[in-house]
Amino acid sequence: MKSLKIVIIGGGSSYTPELIEGIINNYDVLPVSEIWLVDILEGREKLMIIAGLAKRMIAQADCSIKIVETLDRREALKDANYVITQIRVGQLDMRRSDEYLSLKHGVIGQETTGAGGFMKALRTIPVMLDICEDIEELAPEAWLLNFTNPAGIITEAILKHSNVKVVGLCNNPINFYKKFAKDYQVPMKDVSIQFVGINHLNWITDFYIKGKSRLNDVLAGVSASYEAKNIPGLEWDPIFLQSLGAIPCGYHKYYYQTDQILAEQLNNYKKGYTRADQVQQVEKELFTIYEDPSTMEKPDALEQRGGAYYSEAAVNLLTSIHLDNKQIHTVNVRNNGAISCLPNDVCIEVNCIVENQQITPIQTGNVSPQIRGLLQVVKAYEELTVEAAVTRKIGTALQALTIHPLIPSAKKAHELLQDMLIANEAYFQPILYFGGDHV
Amino acid sequence: MKSLKIVIIGGGSSYTPELIEGIINNYDVLPVSEIWLVDILEGREKLMIIAGLAKRMIAQADCSIKIVETLDRREALKDANYVITQIRVGQLDMRRSDEYLSLKHGVIGQETTGAGGFMKALRTIPVMLDICEDIEELAPEAWLLNFTNPAGIITEAILKHSNVKVVGLCNNPINFYKKFAKDYQVPMKDVSIQFVGINHLNWITDFYIKGKSRLNDVLAGVSASYEAKNIPGLEWDPIFLQSLGAIPCGYHKYYYQTDQILAEQLNNYKKGYTRADQVQQVEKELFTIYEDPSTMEKPDALEQRGGAYYSEAAVNLLTSIHLDNKQIHTVNVRNNGAISCLPNDVCIEVNCIVENQQITPIQTGNVSPQIRGLLQVVKAYEELTVEAAVTRKIGTALQALTIHPLIPSAKKAHELLQDMLIANEAYFQPILYFGGDHV
Amino acid sequence: MKSLKIVIIGGGSSYTPELIEGIINNYDVLPVSEIWLVDILEGREKLMIIAGLAKRMIAQADCSIKIVETLDRREALKDANYVITQIRVGQLDMRRSDEYLSLKHGVIGQETTGAGGFMKALRTIPVMLDICEDIEELAPEAWLLNFTNPAGIITEAILKHSNVKVVGLCNNPINFYKKFAKDYQVPMKDVSIQFVGINHLNWITDFYIKGKSRLNDVLAGVSASYEAKNIPGLEWDPIFLQSLGAIPCGYHKYYYQTDQILAEQLNNYKKGYTRADQVQQVEKELFTIYEDPSTMEKPDALEQRGGAYYSEAAVNLLTSIHLDNKQIHTVNVRNNGAISCLPNDVCIEVNCIVENQQITPIQTGNVSPQIRGLLQVVKAYEELTVEAAVTRKIGTALQALTIHPLIPSAKKAHELLQDMLIANEAYFQPILYFGGDHV
Amino acid sequence: MKSLKIVIIGGGSSYTPELIEGIINNYDVLPVSEIWLVDILEGREKLMIIAGLAKRMIAQADCSIKIVETLDRREALKDANYVITQIRVGQLDMRRSDEYLSLKHGVIGQETTGAGGFMKALRTIPVMLDICEDIEELAPEAWLLNFTNPAGIITEAILKHSNVKVVGLCNNPINFYKKFAKDYQVPMKDVSIQFVGINHLNWITDFYIKGKSRLNDVLAGVSASYEAKNIPGLEWDPIFLQSLGAIPCGYHKYYYQTDQILAEQLNNYKKGYTRADQVQQVEKELFTIYEDPSTMEKPDALEQRGGAYYSEAAVNLLTSIHLDNKQIHTVNVRNNGAISCLPNDVCIEVNCIVENQQITPIQTGNVSPQIRGLLQVVKAYEELTVEAAVTRKIGTALQALTIHPLIPSAKKAHELLQDMLIANEAYFQPILYFGGDHV
Repeated sequence: MKSLKIVIIGGGSSYTPELIEGIINNYDVLPVSEIWLVDILEGREKLMIIAGLAKRMIAQADCSIKIVETLDRREALKDANYVITQIRVGQLDMRRSDEYLSLKHGVIGQETTGAGGFMKALRTIPVMLDICEDIEELAPEAWLLNFTNPAGIITEAILKHSNVKVVGLCNNPINFYKKFAKDYQVPMKDVSIQFVGINHLNWITDFYIKGKSRLNDVLAGVSASYEAKNIPGLEWDPIFLQSLGAIPCGYHKYYYQTDQILAEQLNNYKKGYTRADQVQQVEKELFTIYEDPSTMEKPDALEQRGGAYYSEAAVNLLTSIHLDNKQIHTVNVRNNGAISCLPNDVCIEVNCIVENQQITPIQTGNVSPQIRGLLQVVKAYEELTVEAAVTRKIGTALQALTIHPLIPSAKKAHELLQDMLIANEAYFQPILYFGGDHV
Repeated sequence: MKSLKIVIIGGGSSYTPELIEGIINNYDVLPVSEIWLVDILEGREKLMIIAGLAKRMIAQADCSIKIVETLDRREALKDANYVITQIRVGQLDMRRSDEYLSLKHGVIGQETTGAGGFMKALRTIPVMLDICEDIEELAPEAWLLNFTNPAGIITEAILKHSNVKVVGLCNNPINFYKKFAKDYQVPMKDVSIQFVGINHLNWITDFYIKGKSRLNDVLAGVSASYEAKNIPGLEWDPIFLQSLGAIPCGYHKYYYQTDQILAEQLNNYKKGYTRADQVQQVEKELFTIYEDPSTMEKPDALEQRGGAYYSEAAVNLLTSIHLDNKQIHTVNVRNNGAISCLPNDVCIEVNCIVENQQITPIQTGNVSPQIRGLLQVVKAYEELTVEAAVTRKIGTALQALTIHPLIPSAKKAHELLQDMLIANEAYFQPILYFGGDHV
Repeated sequence: MKSLKIVIIGGGSSYTPELIEGIINNYDVLPVSEIWLVDILEGREKLMIIAGLAKRMIAQADCSIKIVETLDRREALKDANYVITQIRVGQLDMRRSDEYLSLKHGVIGQETTGAGGFMKALRTIPVMLDICEDIEELAPEAWLLNFTNPAGIITEAILKHSNVKVVGLCNNPINFYKKFAKDYQVPMKDVSIQFVGINHLNWITDFYIKGKSRLNDVLAGVSASYEAKNIPGLEWDPIFLQSLGAIPCGYHKYYYQTDQILAEQLNNYKKGYTRADQVQQVEKELFTIYEDPSTMEKPDALEQRGGAYYSEAAVNLLTSIHLDNKQIHTVNVRNNGAISCLPNDVCIEVNCIVENQQITPIQTGNVSPQIRGLLQVVKAYEELTVEAAVTRKIGTALQALTIHPLIPSAKKAHELLQDMLIANEAYFQPILYFGGDHV
Repeated sequence: MKSLKIVIIGGGSSYTPELIEGIINNYDVLPVSEIWLVDILEGREKLMIIAGLAKRMIAQADCSIKIVETLDRREALKDANYVITQIRVGQLDMRRSDEYLSLKHGVIGQETTGAGGFMKALRTIPVMLDICEDIEELAPEAWLLNFTNPAGIITEAILKHSNVKVVGLCNNPINFYKKFAKDYQVPMKDVSIQFVGINHLNWITDFYIKGKSRLNDVLAGVSASYEAKNIPGLEWDPIFLQSLGAIPCGYHKYYYQTDQILAEQLNNYKKGYTRADQVQQVEKELFTIYEDPSTMEKPDALEQRGGAYYSEAAVNLLTSIHLDNKQIHTVNVRNNGAISCLPNDVCIEVNCIVENQQITPIQTGNVSPQIRGLLQVVKAYEELTVEAAVTRKIGTALQALTIHPLIPSAKKAHELLQDMLIANEAYFQPILYFGGDHV
């Protein structure tokens, strides 16, 4: 008897077909009976396209899962077992705005970190906390799987300001599992990876193939082959890599290669074609395919979108929670001492055990100073960002930006912030303001 | 019966007359019988000038203190009670080299932080550890007061790699005491300041005049009047200051106003007149005055040199240790948990109690994220710098520079390092090298 | 112009004349204009006697301090500058009850620790928190100096459950200063002692005479000469003392010599003459002297009472807070990391700096396992005791007693608790009860 | 191709047939080719009997495993893959001596805790560290599975004083898994238990059946049915259990029911029939069965010996390490912050992940004060015991015993220690002695 109700908030996202595919593939162990796709009025058209495709996919796969598309979030959430959030407040237009605004001020514009990620976090956190209030009321036992970026910051906001059972998820870790499995020609179960860090700033301090450490294979002569698609490819200096003693993730380049990435982005900016423009084009193409009634499966073109294996990670985790099967997943959870150089109440992304309806981090041991220093300052930025989003204090926002390694001064932070307030006027409500008690 | 033997290593420094003056002024409580001024062959001429002045000052003050100038460090150290180190490995020429090399690569060139301070640390640590070996052998009970910059890093190296009783000292804290005393028209004993941080990155989280907190006086509308002389004057943004919730020290500008300071320095660099050039000129003028047989006291011109009240801080501390008088001094010591977000074994600069022949930090309480993040990343840089100086591993040096907030990428760090090795060839011996086990 | 208002709650205590004497002796630096003596109806007669004596003492000393005796606590507290609490809920009769009840069950009966101290804490905490509510309302800026035993537990309850500025005080530390000063024939200012621990379980890990460590003098061959008057004298085994590496305080005997002390107490119990009986007799004699109109000063007989130098410690501290004079006092404050093996929010008794209207603990460094183990288990008992007093949960009370080292089993703890509920019926209101949600 | 070499030190133990049975049962996944049984000269006879039985068992099971019995430990260890230690220094006679000596002094005599466990630890640690030296030399890659009691203390000694990859193992956790599986009629894989603590002092803070917490089933009304065989059965007070908020292990009774257990043991002592006597009798009977050539399997009588499921736990763990299969095992490992209220370098017994040739503890979260206090004091005793065994300092031994909750005073500890030195003369070599530097 199939009985699970899954709610996907941001159901009109181009990623949804991946999720549907994943649920279909796990249909034998994951007894899903209903999938509710929720979106907002502005996303209605996309929602309809996705819902149509989802229904065709379900039919094609011959599963008995009911697809419900709706703009009524509260109706959808009622008695949900699992909620998946993949929203984009302000949609791709605001992503573009974020990138252009940042680059206009001469700083890196990126969706999840720096000035760009900061704006996205400030737009998104209030909406996510609203969703969590609904979950607390309508489906208090549900697990929330958050994909919404910046996933670590959003998850930390929820961990600190709601009682929802939340876990944050990114495709970055699973991509490394996939890559190593492919590189060493072994099944994924024979790959084991030690991650230390936070979402999008996560170091691999060792990895094992069939229980044997192979880190030195990479440190000794790796090419940049393990990079994600959405990060400009630049090779690592071998001396840098060896002395780091760890494999950086793709997003580390914004920190370790700041000047080069910035130059590249400024070049695109001048040409008027940034990553956001590229994504908008891909999205447009994707929806054309999705809309085609002959599309019955997730199209291959989706892989160019940059979120490869997102749904595999998500559905694996969902299955693991449902079966309570003591599997290890690399996900975003409350620290609780697992990384001892970070505060207990912050969100980290490390290997966790899914057991007893809990997702518990495994101890990471000591962190070397070269990793620790960067990790701590970026985490402090994240803590301040969460605080700024919740308290709406402009001063806290200013402090967050100022200590971010990609922002070169408090003055620049201030100027950025002034422009951000204008560009995000519709979303930073009640607005962050200057003066009075809100400093 | 006067009996203390004080040894000043780097006795030919232009700061020495300040120390002599301080010792004269405390002659009634500090029973000094001998001051040995030690320098190296290259500093011989300056040493002779300083020794001559010191003797005239002592005579003028009618104290019975013997001044001995020598190039024989080991003879000087024998049975010393206090050793003061104020050396400059490579002298002012290398300071100039540090500044120009940094600016050539487009990064801030500064004596104590960033690329400049890094080179100075790498030149200085091996020499200081040699001195400490001598102290361990020849004067194991002596206290070492270290002024040598970067004072926090040097002191950390000694705390970690020798058994000498060391304390690091900077004039930055005493300048704030002086400033607040003047601003509020009270004697210094009525001023009390809470410092959190490390040398040259030290926040004032509160201060009190006659036991009453006055922090908000400054946060609400301070001008930049509390700045030290050797830091370009730029005002703080009031919103920034209020949300920081603390008063930054002068050196914070390199971090909070990186782009502006860099622009200003590059401008001077193009003109061929940086801070090092300015200091060289001041030094030249000072020694002309020192040499004049009619100079019997510390000349007023010394204040322009930037180390105002250094000697007052030093002699106060020396007196306090000698009397074991339970006074509070803001100095550089082993953390031991006083700042709980930093490792126990690092060097911090906070209020300490001088008691029982020990200098013990007072608990600082929680540190806000805006302070914590920057403090942690710079401290991690310092830990790596000490490690690089001791292990001579080029990889560790690369990691140190890479995570420093003033260095924009690992590539830039690598390029800087290559140039540094050449410029410091005479001092980084045995050299840091690329490749092999020394990564 | 004298202007401080001091309120002594429990003003009818036999210790009050000591306090009055102390205030008189510090009259030149401590500008006291009013002392309010507050007591409850049952203590009215004693209050009148004490007030009479206090007035004669003030007159004799020719100070212009007004003494006001009252049963109206709220009137007294209004605009107080300092509040001193030295109450005994249930008076000496309940102390006697505590001792006899404990010994009846075959466990040590002592006023501040074990089953006796536990009952006293449970009777006292609710009353003290009531007093604190009044202070918060009527004198929010006042400092509370708490003498009431068990002083560490009471102070912890206030630190955790009120906003009053509180510091706990015991005469144990000052007694060691006095003793060492006498032993080494130096003034007290030349004695410096390192304490680690909590009230009545406080180890001296080193002490210094004129800045020179003398701990080994004691470890190598000390007699038990440093004992307080109210603790049965038993010598320490020299091998024990040397391997402990620290000097225990008098109250350690209850833990280190449990079987011997218990045998001795049971012997007194059978004779019907315990410490409580002895104290009652001393008190009776004291009040006879106090009542005598010819008594114009604190009588010598008070020293037998066991609280020697209590008032000296108190008035010194009060003066230090008033002058904000950066002195060191060994008092009971919030841990905040000063003893890193204990939770941050518990009360500890260590050297503290009185500065900036704050009393801040000085870092204690590492604690050896022989000290750590006992310290941690007794502190856990104290935390549970505070929790039991505030939540009124019988289960928490049971856990507190069970882990106390002087209680031999959970069964014995349960039996004790049942008797305690009966004996303290008038004070444990609303009573701790068995069953329901209050487990 | 079967190829693993397993060495069992203490191969003549009556537990060995269990291990052999376990290895046989896992023969399909664990490719064992050789089992070496090592014992000392005094155990030769037993070794021969066990080796004979082992060979019959292997033959009966039709496995191709070679059994080698030897007194040459070094030959056996050469190139071993796994070493299992289950030695008893001084054999059962010394266990009897431990129990009688303790009870003679009126304290609990028990094999693993209190005075008895202390003597066993001091006899065993030097021998185990000798074995580890051999392993470091002859089989540096081997894993050591230590069963030898007191397993937590022995494992901590090895973790601190050798480089061998060690894990300590006890049957206590697996017994709880078995019990809950049986109680709830589910397979063991559906049981999940959260343990917090150290070996033989391990609390169950929650447990789950098919992912659903069932702790309250036990707290609300459990009988003592989950007790191990070798601990006298006494029921828990329900109020105690509920307020504890956790299920104690069998060995907690020595701490929570000290007076009752002591009374019971003293009674047996007077009768001259303690647990040691009982075990000696069981052993005698077991070897009679083992010797019988018709015995081809592990006899049922072994279960009375008290170590039920020891071998299942061991062989499961061994298989898990060999397969590197990311399973959870409750074993004794270095803390590393998993229980944040204990030092990092001590041994704890918690759920661990076997992955990447490492056994990593999973974070346990906060520990309530009622658990924390007892845990910390017993762990401090264990740390001191390890230190005493390694440094041979009598003073450290005295401190260890003094703070142990089952020892009523330093005087009693001293008296016990004097008797221990005589009784263990043959084993405490070089002896712990009184006086000189060894205090």
